[in-house]
Amino acid sequence: MVSLAGGMPNIADLPREAIGAAISKLIAENGVQAMQYGSGQGEPFMRDKITEVMAEEQIAAHADDIVITCGSQQGLDLVTRVFCDPGDVILAEAPSYVGALGTFHANQCEVVHVAMDEHGIVPQMLRHAVHTLRAAGRKVKFLYTIPNFQNPTGVSQTLERRRELVALAHEVDLLILEDNPYGLLTLDEQPLPALRALDAEKVVYLGSFSKTFAPGFRVGWVLAPHAVREKLVLTQESATLCPPVFSQFAIAKYLDEFDWRGQILVFRDMYRARRDAMLEALPEHMPAGSQWTHPRGGFFVWLTLPEGLDSQAMLPRAVTARVAYTPGTAFYADGLGSRNMRLSFCFPTPERIIEGVKRLGEVIKAELVTRATFGIDVTPAQPIRRDLTVGPAPDVN
Amino acid sequence: MVSLAGGMPNIADLPREAIGAAISKLIAENGVQAMQYGSGQGEPFMRDKITEVMAEEQIAAHADDIVITCGSQQGLDLVTRVFCDPGDVILAEAPSYVGALGTFHANQCEVVHVAMDEHGIVPQMLRHAVHTLRAAGRKVKFLYTIPNFQNPTGVSQTLERRRELVALAHEVDLLILEDNPYGLLTLDEQPLPALRALDAEKVVYLGSFSKTFAPGFRVGWVLAPHAVREKLVLTQESATLCPPVFSQFAIAKYLDEFDWRGQILVFRDMYRARRDAMLEALPEHMPAGSQWTHPRGGFFVWLTLPEGLDSQAMLPRAVTARVAYTPGTAFYADGLGSRNMRLSFCFPTPERIIEGVKRLGEVIKAELVTRATFGIDVTPAQPIRRDLTVGPAPDVN
Repeated sequence: MVSLAGGMPNIADLPREAIGAAISKLIAENGVQAMQYGSGQGEPFMRDKITEVMAEEQIAAHADDIVITCGSQQGLDLVTRVFCDPGDVILAEAPSYVGALGTFHANQCEVVHVAMDEHGIVPQMLRHAVHTLRAAGRKVKFLYTIPNFQNPTGVSQTLERRRELVALAHEVDLLILEDNPYGLLTLDEQPLPALRALDAEKVVYLGSFSKTFAPGFRVGWVLAPHAVREKLVLTQESATLCPPVFSQFAIAKYLDEFDWRGQILVFRDMYRARRDAMLEALPEHMPAGSQWTHPRGGFFVWLTLPEGLDSQAMLPRAVTARVAYTPGTAFYADGLGSRNMRLSFCFPTPERIIEGVKRLGEVIKAELVTRATFGIDVTPAQPIRRDLTVGPAPDVN
Repeated sequence: MVSLAGGMPNIADLPREAIGAAISKLIAENGVQAMQYGSGQGEPFMRDKITEVMAEEQIAAHADDIVITCGSQQGLDLVTRVFCDPGDVILAEAPSYVGALGTFHANQCEVVHVAMDEHGIVPQMLRHAVHTLRAAGRKVKFLYTIPNFQNPTGVSQTLERRRELVALAHEVDLLILEDNPYGLLTLDEQPLPALRALDAEKVVYLGSFSKTFAPGFRVGWVLAPHAVREKLVLTQESATLCPPVFSQFAIAKYLDEFDWRGQILVFRDMYRARRDAMLEALPEHMPAGSQWTHPRGGFFVWLTLPEGLDSQAMLPRAVTARVAYTPGTAFYADGLGSRNMRLSFCFPTPERIIEGVKRLGEVIKAELVTRATFGIDVTPAQPIRRDLTVGPAPDVN
């Protein structure tokens, strides 16, 4: 089986022996603190280090405005709990990260998707959504967006688009929740400034070590304006007392004693080879009528099937052909996405990616033959919500 | 300063060098898994190990019914989120753990306290509370109880009391949330069976490695009936994706390669010496009219001041005299507890505990002199709620 489905980073290239030795030393020298309860906000030395990491994306922040979380997923949950009541609306790209949709749903919020183009979420569509929803009496709490190498589309916002979004946030008085796990995994250019680098007032920022170091330690963070930060700390204390303490000591040790910037360059080279393998294999194996995005970083390509095909219905046949992907419907709160799928290039080797794309191409071609032979439209009827949620497929091939 | 205020375990006696070496080996040999994303329910090997730990308190459980949490505090939060809506009632001992009260409050639930006696929560008071609240149209979602060495009173439920509580849970159809961080830190006798050992249907159980190993890894667990467990896993996934993975590998390694049962005996000896130091110092230094509990395990003694004194008002003067404690009001949702304080014997050495109790006795005696001299009643007016919440001070001296 070649899985193009998951979003697991490839951490096999981390210098494990050296990291193990450093953590062993940490326990011997500082274990009484590292294994004890810690601060509900997160350890001060960890928050200091995080300001250095964020500076790589031009964010100037004070360590006191950071709250450490159990992975940035917990940041999503804490922010949602602090801002939202049941029935509130959260705006998100169409499509958006499945884990965020899950958290918003668990907190009884409704997600309204806003169309993207090849430069990310479309400001005029966002303005229209905010006005329409507010006119209908709905409470719109924030825009959730992934500006860099978006999950699942791989699309990035241009610098101009970022400036437009931040200006729009002020124009319509809308908070932006910026989720940025992949920003430093840029493959073709230097990192663009984060939305938070352009505006400190309207942007709450989520960061993570899961893709730039390792996810198993479960350390992410929220950077928020002071009044929000205070509420986040109280919510964190009631949720966990304190985020993982030992993990914070371990990651701080890694950042202190290892060339973490150099390690990110190693990761970039590794992911670039995988991204390139996928983008070279797709035109070779995909039938006419297929479209896909061309990510300049991150983990994902977003594929649109030829008309009439359904990625969810096709999945069992793909698995039989020993290739897996994530059906597009997972990334919509409203039932769309049946012609789409997310293909991950993060975890398998380039050779396996090429083999996976080849198998996938054969499955799609077989679906087209079946459809032509039996005249069956294998795509189920889609809900039509052209007002807010339907935009062009992003960055199409 | 002698702090008798905190609840931090003393982990200085853990074999840190050996633990460091074991974790270093873990990273070298198994780091790719230990540092990767994991299961939302928690790693299967960790859940298997936890069944062995719970067997020490006579709990027979299947690993599939366990959900790993980011400390048992997160278990409290997840269970509350799964069961409760805003305005629901949670019953708890009077007084109860401040961190649980905080979580229930953050989830917009109302806590109604039920009186304790020297054997724990009083069944007839619990029955009365359930009937009264339901007659008033309130939704009572569960009883939160700490059967062993309760925080903050140090009181333990007898076996007979446990049987009564479980029978009552069936009689009035009430779920019990059993929080058991201290059970294995029994100092005078073998562990009694957990409530969950007596009943698997009406009891949701919270466990933790924070006191029997170390809190900084943030690993606790919930053991719940199957239908509840499924909802807890979904809530955990939306809250964190997965609980701390590296911590689970580290703790499993510790349980596998170290004599963890022997280490608990070491902890017991250490805490027994501290508990004994406190219980020997109290009658020597406390003025007439003071009362306190006699815990047979755990971390805490609950002190009742002579009439007319207020532990909250007195705290600044105690701090000036270089001794700290936690005022009793922290452990009530309804403003009671001003004559009480929690004294922790877990963290300072026996010598420091004796010194702290001596200083505290002097502060209390000075308060009594002030009161007698100036005729001031330094106790503020207390709210009177004798129906459900006021019981005798537990296990009084």
